[in-house]
Amino acid sequence: MNHIFVGQKPVMNYAMSALIQLASAGEVTVKARGMAISRAVDVAEIVTKRLGNGQFKVKDIGISTEVVGEGAETRNISSIEIVVGK
Amino acid sequence: MNHIFVGQKPVMNYAMSALIQLASAGEVTVKARGMAISRAVDVAEIVTKRLGNGQFKVKDIGISTEVVGEGAETRNISSIEIVVGK
Repeated sequence: MNHIFVGQKPVMNYAMSALIQLASAGEVTVKARGMAISRAVDVAEIVTKRLGNGQFKVKDIGISTEVVGEGAETRNISSIEIVVGK
Repeated sequence: MNHIFVGQKPVMNYAMSALIQLASAGEVTVKARGMAISRAVDVAEIVTKRLGNGQFKVKDIGISTEVVGEGAETRNISSIEIVVGK
């Protein structure tokens, strides 16, 4: 379960969680859906550029579409997964 | 100048522009900064999954940090570049 799901909290909360994961596991996947995608990119940029002493880099980025809701409420939402590691 | 800069317009405006570029040049780079990053991912997903008859795919995704403003107003903003092609 080496991932962080980015939502509506302040970006630094997620950046700190990511750094803790990186320190213990050496890799973390930063995930987000919809409007939170921008914040997930901020988290990855902060962890690789501003914090982490240049130890970590973005290793892979994937985007996809998820279907959420049921029946007539079904809609598509974009998602992102950013793998950060050494 | 084979790129589209995604801003605040409806997502379909950018998806249509991207398809026109893809039809003429075979490749387009979808770019965005800050909150518009989520919309750029939507554009790439729509062009590759929903429109385009499965002809196009995401070829590369890069994220970076840009410095905007001057003097005391300087701040960092995340950006994304998504290359879509055949």
